[in-house]
Amino acid sequence: MKLYERLAAELQQRIEGGLYRGGDRLPSIRVLSQEHKVSIATVQEAYRRLEEQGLAEPRPKSGYYVRQQRHVPTLPAVSRPAQRPLEVSQWEQVLELVCGPHDDKVVTLAHGMPDFGAPTLKPLLRQLAALARGTPMRGLEYDNLHGCRELREQIVRLAVDSSTPLHPDDVVITAGCQEALSASMRAVTRPGEVVAVDSPSYYGAMQVIRANGLRAMEIPTHPETGISLEALELALEQWPIRAVQVTPTCNNPLGYTMPDEHKRRLVALAQRFDAAIIEDDIYGDLSFRYPRPRTVKSFDADGRVLLCSSFSKTLAPGLRVGWVAPGRYRDAVLHMKYVGTGSSATLPQLAVAHFVADGGYERHVRRMRLQYQRGRDIMLGWLERHFPAATRISYPQGGYLIWVELADDIDTVELNRRLLALGVRIAPGVLFSASGKYRNCMRLNYGGEPTPRVEDGLRTIGAELARMRHGA
Amino acid sequence: MKLYERLAAELQQRIEGGLYRGGDRLPSIRVLSQEHKVSIATVQEAYRRLEEQGLAEPRPKSGYYVRQQRHVPTLPAVSRPAQRPLEVSQWEQVLELVCGPHDDKVVTLAHGMPDFGAPTLKPLLRQLAALARGTPMRGLEYDNLHGCRELREQIVRLAVDSSTPLHPDDVVITAGCQEALSASMRAVTRPGEVVAVDSPSYYGAMQVIRANGLRAMEIPTHPETGISLEALELALEQWPIRAVQVTPTCNNPLGYTMPDEHKRRLVALAQRFDAAIIEDDIYGDLSFRYPRPRTVKSFDADGRVLLCSSFSKTLAPGLRVGWVAPGRYRDAVLHMKYVGTGSSATLPQLAVAHFVADGGYERHVRRMRLQYQRGRDIMLGWLERHFPAATRISYPQGGYLIWVELADDIDTVELNRRLLALGVRIAPGVLFSASGKYRNCMRLNYGGEPTPRVEDGLRTIGAELARMRHGA
Repeated sequence: MKLYERLAAELQQRIEGGLYRGGDRLPSIRVLSQEHKVSIATVQEAYRRLEEQGLAEPRPKSGYYVRQQRHVPTLPAVSRPAQRPLEVSQWEQVLELVCGPHDDKVVTLAHGMPDFGAPTLKPLLRQLAALARGTPMRGLEYDNLHGCRELREQIVRLAVDSSTPLHPDDVVITAGCQEALSASMRAVTRPGEVVAVDSPSYYGAMQVIRANGLRAMEIPTHPETGISLEALELALEQWPIRAVQVTPTCNNPLGYTMPDEHKRRLVALAQRFDAAIIEDDIYGDLSFRYPRPRTVKSFDADGRVLLCSSFSKTLAPGLRVGWVAPGRYRDAVLHMKYVGTGSSATLPQLAVAHFVADGGYERHVRRMRLQYQRGRDIMLGWLERHFPAATRISYPQGGYLIWVELADDIDTVELNRRLLALGVRIAPGVLFSASGKYRNCMRLNYGGEPTPRVEDGLRTIGAELARMRHGA
Repeated sequence: MKLYERLAAELQQRIEGGLYRGGDRLPSIRVLSQEHKVSIATVQEAYRRLEEQGLAEPRPKSGYYVRQQRHVPTLPAVSRPAQRPLEVSQWEQVLELVCGPHDDKVVTLAHGMPDFGAPTLKPLLRQLAALARGTPMRGLEYDNLHGCRELREQIVRLAVDSSTPLHPDDVVITAGCQEALSASMRAVTRPGEVVAVDSPSYYGAMQVIRANGLRAMEIPTHPETGISLEALELALEQWPIRAVQVTPTCNNPLGYTMPDEHKRRLVALAQRFDAAIIEDDIYGDLSFRYPRPRTVKSFDADGRVLLCSSFSKTLAPGLRVGWVAPGRYRDAVLHMKYVGTGSSATLPQLAVAHFVADGGYERHVRRMRLQYQRGRDIMLGWLERHFPAATRISYPQGGYLIWVELADDIDTVELNRRLLALGVRIAPGVLFSASGKYRNCMRLNYGGEPTPRVEDGLRTIGAELARMRHGA
């Protein structure tokens, strides 16, 4: 542990222990430097760390203060899906969400879309342009089926942050995380088999289950700790479950991160019942905690975890650069990738590889983590202000998605239909269930700039909700 | 028909009728202009057309001559695959071909790789660079699930050339032709069903059949006219065939183009037995005949043809820009695309759309058609010179792939193994069969510059073949 890390940890203990409370002024940099016999730079680094963790905030010309801990609204209830495998429905709604008209006049809170207006993304664009001008133009050639070596090396480097030991040969580049999830699912299952999923669950993964003729066994899920391991164990005992599909870190849509101990136990369960784990880590690098949480894969001893991710949420989705570390299933995943797309577009891979190698990725992600954390806090404030009092709201630990649970009699599909005429769009909860549950829930995105226009959108939703409550 | 087209057609008739023979000098431009009462420019245009068709060639300061018709070597035999549906094997060999080490010292004749060193491809690269520098950067956004509208409009425009009436809403952009084939196959079949294929058949399409738990019914195929419609009819009567997968224009690997009348009858057969047709047209625009041949889709009255193509063979495979016109199966194809990759990379789509709109695509393809036709003739000469006398060779009507059938006792998998040590690679015939047929065949690529190094490679293969014949 470096000096500044030790100092930051000590200050963190004091804050969490209650020695310093929300709003308190923290000791000045000079004082700490003398007290701890460390340099000014070390104290500054320690404070920057606390700032990243959301524990302290600087005030101009005044020093650092303990951040006010928000009043946290009631969390959504633990989910209670059906206790049997089900066919996945809801494709029409997904299609509507995915193909909905692009209209600048609509405030869309529906998509998992990052903010890519940040200046820290500029070097990536310069890389793309430079590569397109370069000769010989490697961007035109067929890529290796595994994906560009340079990029796989960078992914291995980044994985150190989540304590996930990888080798470039373990990594297969894909067309976004969607191909990673799809190729993984097809590699480990056969039509008719059963897959356990956290619930609510990302609709893209649910549609993979549907398209492959599988059945989904939805497992109760806690809004802070994720998939219920007790319920999962019962399901594994009762049903021939071939694979478990989870998003354990910065979950979509609930925003939780499973505790490390849960992740470890999840792997042990999968071992005991010889199931594969498909781990969707697409938002993992956007965790508000630094260093970022470990992956489930980092506890994997026998290669049964297929770790899927992408640069779509951290950089930009239009690049379609994703990857999977498929463990023991590598050959089957390669076959599915070959069959599905042949290889990945070369130019975006090379641009991302250079961007990561030059440190641009880390700079960008550091910035976005802070932006999204601010975005979450602002969104929470707006939701409390404009939504009905009984609303339950998730408390995201990373990423930019928030889950809202309304009164039982609200139907968010109907709400969305009404909102469209008012220029606002949300992602209705049914998309996240195999069979039409979560009808009173919705997912919102706080990734963009928190403009008055967005607050207006939320105000509109709140007003419409009030109207629906009164039967209008 | 334009004036110059009428004149070219008339001259073509005279050449094919034998009025002018190989090596004859054709009438001068002035004479034709007077005879036919058309402008000098019109005659020049007509001669350019004949040149493109490979019927005439200019000689400096002397005028146009009838091109010497080559001695055409014996064609491969009509294929005789097994008369029952089979599981597709051979994935390991495909993997070896696809993942083989990239080594500049190896002369690789194995891949379906275009030449992308041509100067006519430069504007595409400039487009890519300009788009990467542009703001707002649409290349970063999620693309519409259908693909960029601009590109779909250009694809519709190009399809006029093959008499295929399309509307932008009929077109879905994919990650190369492979995703088009894969999504199409998954849209029209369920695991366990039977698919009829021309034989030999492109290994990528065969692996789609394998990965989806389907069985392949290989149909005898003529090296000049393609899939045997009589054999196909028998198969359709005998087996519950859900789909027919063919590459009817500039076939891979045989190089034939099915006559229009066969294409029309193929559609009628599919209608009668209510089967879908998956048409792989990836080399279609590289036909040596101009205007290019019609698609099977152009005869399709009830939307049962899924026309698959891509810019991988005409421009560059690293772009991963393909497309499918799925007819009545559009919604199912969209679902499979959504599940497989979510959407396609945006930047390469936009670059291709601009390149086509600016006329760059047509300029480039015109040039490449001539280059590949020259390449074919040179390759034929080299094969006759260096390969055993009894070798049977296809006569490609477009594209840059040639099929070679050797004596029955030659095993091209073993040949390839020996060649690797000698710095040459081929695509062994077994890849193109569901079950290990075509062991005495190979596919070669003549897309690159016909350098002495390539001739040396063929000489090496010939020498090794001689050695194998003598049991060494």
